[in-house]
Amino acid sequence: MGIRRLLVGQSGGPTAAINASLAGVVETARALGIKTLGMRHGVEGLLEEDVVDLDLTLPTAAHLQLLRQTPASYLGSCRFKLPDMMADPAPYRDLFSYFDINGIDAVLYIGGNDSMDTISKLAAYGEATGSSVRFIGVPKTIDNDLEGIDHTPGFGSAAKFIATSVAELARDASVYDLDNVLVVEIMGRDAGWLAASSVLARQDGLGAPHFILTPEAPVDEAALVDAVADRMGETRTVVLAVSEGARRPDGSLMCEPPTGAIKVDAFGHAAALSGTGRYLAGLIGGRLGLKTRAVELSTLQRCASHLASATDLAEASALGGTAVRAVADGLTGKMPVIRRTGDRPYTVEYGLVDVADVANKERHIPRAWITPDGLDVTSEFVEYVRPLVAGEVAPYCVDGLPHHIPAL
Amino acid sequence: MGIRRLLVGQSGGPTAAINASLAGVVETARALGIKTLGMRHGVEGLLEEDVVDLDLTLPTAAHLQLLRQTPASYLGSCRFKLPDMMADPAPYRDLFSYFDINGIDAVLYIGGNDSMDTISKLAAYGEATGSSVRFIGVPKTIDNDLEGIDHTPGFGSAAKFIATSVAELARDASVYDLDNVLVVEIMGRDAGWLAASSVLARQDGLGAPHFILTPEAPVDEAALVDAVADRMGETRTVVLAVSEGARRPDGSLMCEPPTGAIKVDAFGHAAALSGTGRYLAGLIGGRLGLKTRAVELSTLQRCASHLASATDLAEASALGGTAVRAVADGLTGKMPVIRRTGDRPYTVEYGLVDVADVANKERHIPRAWITPDGLDVTSEFVEYVRPLVAGEVAPYCVDGLPHHIPAL
Repeated sequence: MGIRRLLVGQSGGPTAAINASLAGVVETARALGIKTLGMRHGVEGLLEEDVVDLDLTLPTAAHLQLLRQTPASYLGSCRFKLPDMMADPAPYRDLFSYFDINGIDAVLYIGGNDSMDTISKLAAYGEATGSSVRFIGVPKTIDNDLEGIDHTPGFGSAAKFIATSVAELARDASVYDLDNVLVVEIMGRDAGWLAASSVLARQDGLGAPHFILTPEAPVDEAALVDAVADRMGETRTVVLAVSEGARRPDGSLMCEPPTGAIKVDAFGHAAALSGTGRYLAGLIGGRLGLKTRAVELSTLQRCASHLASATDLAEASALGGTAVRAVADGLTGKMPVIRRTGDRPYTVEYGLVDVADVANKERHIPRAWITPDGLDVTSEFVEYVRPLVAGEVAPYCVDGLPHHIPAL
Repeated sequence: MGIRRLLVGQSGGPTAAINASLAGVVETARALGIKTLGMRHGVEGLLEEDVVDLDLTLPTAAHLQLLRQTPASYLGSCRFKLPDMMADPAPYRDLFSYFDINGIDAVLYIGGNDSMDTISKLAAYGEATGSSVRFIGVPKTIDNDLEGIDHTPGFGSAAKFIATSVAELARDASVYDLDNVLVVEIMGRDAGWLAASSVLARQDGLGAPHFILTPEAPVDEAALVDAVADRMGETRTVVLAVSEGARRPDGSLMCEPPTGAIKVDAFGHAAALSGTGRYLAGLIGGRLGLKTRAVELSTLQRCASHLASATDLAEASALGGTAVRAVADGLTGKMPVIRRTGDRPYTVEYGLVDVADVANKERHIPRAWITPDGLDVTSEFVEYVRPLVAGEVAPYCVDGLPHHIPAL
C-alpha cells in the first residue's frame, strides 16, 4: 500500500540544520505526491492533536528555502519520553487512534537519542498491534553522539560556528602586549565532539586553541596549570577550548567544586557560579597570576544559522528525503544514516539502520583521536571534522539581517 | 611640504572594522605615493620603537582585502594615556625625537575616545614646539559614543552581530511549549547604543526583544518584573536585551548587588557573580517562578568579522582614506567624520572636525529615542540604526572557515 499522508515532528534541542531536514522531508514527500502534516511540539503536542498542514504553511519551494536558513525548530519541540508500552499503554492507544482516524500512513520524527527511543517504541508497538503505520527517525544533534552514523546533522554547523568564533576570539584576545589566558566553554556534557572541533581554528598562523579539554579525557588540574605556564613561554595569549563536561581524573566535573570546597550561593542563582570555563579561568588566573577571561559560546552554538555549514544543511535535507523514500518503500523502525566513503575528496552515501540498534546509545570521541596527555586532539580527528564545516550558505538578508520564516 | 612617510597605529578595544580603517589608510597612502609604517601596540609600542614597514607586510591589494576581513587589531593595541605635557614632557620628547630621526611626516591613530585624547595632546605639543608633524585621529569604537560623528566605524558590524544573534537566540528559546524568559546581556557600560540595536531583530514576525534596557534610562526592578509578567500573557517567551550598564533609578548598576545585600565571593572570581543578565534572569525567575536563561554575547560582539556590515567596513575604509588626504592637505589635529545626508536612501559625506572638540566627551542615546517607560526604543532609533547594518561581506573562506591575514 502506498503512502498518502505523512506526519512529521521535531524533538529535542534545536540545531541550525533541523529545519533543513524538515525541508527535505516536505520536498521529497511533495515530489512523491504524499501530503505532509506537522505535529507541533513533537509527540507532546500530538497527544493534544496539535497538528498543522504543511502544504498550507510551506506551500512553495521559496518557503522551503527560507525554512532551510531559519534557526530553531519550525514545528516546535518537546522533551517527552514515552513510557514503557507494557507499563502504560494509554499514550500509545491515543496516538495510534489518532493515526487511524486521520489516515496517517507514516510518522517521521527528527531528533536525537531520545527521539530515536520514541520512534523505536512506536515501531515496536505498531508491530505488536499489527498497525500498518510506518515509523522512521531522522537523526539530528549538535552533540554528534548518535551511533550508527558517520556524523549527525547539526554537528557540522555547530562546529563551523565554534571554530570560527574561537579564531575570532583568539585574535581579539591577543591584541595587547600582555600575557593572558582565554578559556572558551563549549557545549558537550558527556561527549567532546564540539569542543574538539575548535581545533579547526588553527589556520592562518593561529596557534589557538592551545589546549582542548573533553569529557573523554579527564585532566589533572595541576598538570593543566603547568602546561599553560609552559606554553606561556611561547605565546602571550594561551587559549583553552573546554567542554562544559570536562572532568578531573576522579571523574568529578570541573564545573562542580573540588571535593571539600564549599559551594557558595548568591542571589539564588548558584548554577551561574559553576561554569567550567569560569572555574578554569579563576583557577589558572589564581595560580599563575595572569589576566584571564572566560567566554561561554552559549546556545548560539546550536542556533547560529547565519554561519551554517552548507555541507551540513545539504546532508540534513538529504536524510529527510531518504526517510520519506524509506516509508514509501514500506520500511519501518529505521533511521537514515550518512556513511563516509572518502575523505579527499569527501564523499558520502546514505543508508538505513535499525533505530532500535541506535536508540539510547551514546558515541564518544575515540580515545586514540585525543593525545595521550588529554590536552589536544590528533590529526585523525582533524581529518574527520574538516569536511563537515565546508561550504558557506550566504543567507538571503532583508535590511542587513538573515531572513527567517515566520514562526507558526 | 608634501608627505613622504606616514606612521599609523591602532589603539583601544578591537572592532570588526578597525582593520578596514587600516586598509583604507594604506591603500590611499600608496595611491598618493606615501610610505606607511605601522606602530605595534600603539603609542606604548612606539615608545619602544616597535615599528613595522607596511609596504613589506601588506604588499598587495589582496593583502589589504584579507586584512579587511580579519578581526582584532592587526598592529596590536594598547591602553596607554599620555600624561599632561606640562607635568611630564619626557614621552613627548621621546616620540618627537623618533619622528624627527625617522623622517615621519604624519601620524594617524585609529581608536576611540582615549586615542582622540592622545592625538589631541600630540597635535598640541607639535604646535607648541613648532613641529611640522601632522596628527589625525581615525575614529573607531563599537560603543558608538564619540561626539561629532553620525556613528562610529565598528558600531554597525557589532549591531549586525547583536541583532542577528538576538533573533537566532529568541527563536531557539521559543521552541518548547513553555513560559520562559531569555535575558541577553550586551556590551555598553555607559551608553546603550549596542543593546538598543537589538531592536532590529524584530522582523519576520518576531516580537523579540520585548524589552530593551539601556544605561540612559534607569528602570525600577519591580516595574520591570511586572512588565515581564504582563507580556507573558501575549507570548510564551519573553526576551530582554540589556546593556551591561543597565541601572536602577538610584543610579546603581544592576550588576552590583542592591544596597544592603552582601556580595559573595566564590573561588576567587567574584566578577562572575555580577553579570547584569545573570542578575536579571535570577530576579525575574525568582519573582515569577519561570524558567529563565541568561546569555552574554561576550567579546564576539566586537570581533565577529564573519558577520561584519559591508556598510561599516566601507565607511571605515573611507575614513582611513579621508585621514590620509587630510594630512596630505597639510591639516593636523583633526578627526575625519561621517555626516548623514539622507535616510531613504541612506547617504553620507565625509568631513573633518577638530579632534580637541571630540576627545574626552561621550555621546549617549537621546532620551527621546527611548520610550518614556525606559523599556524600549522608538522608531527614530530604528530609522537611525537600520542602514548601518546593511550589506553582507561573504568572507573568503578556506576549508570552511573565514581566511584571516596572519598576525605580525
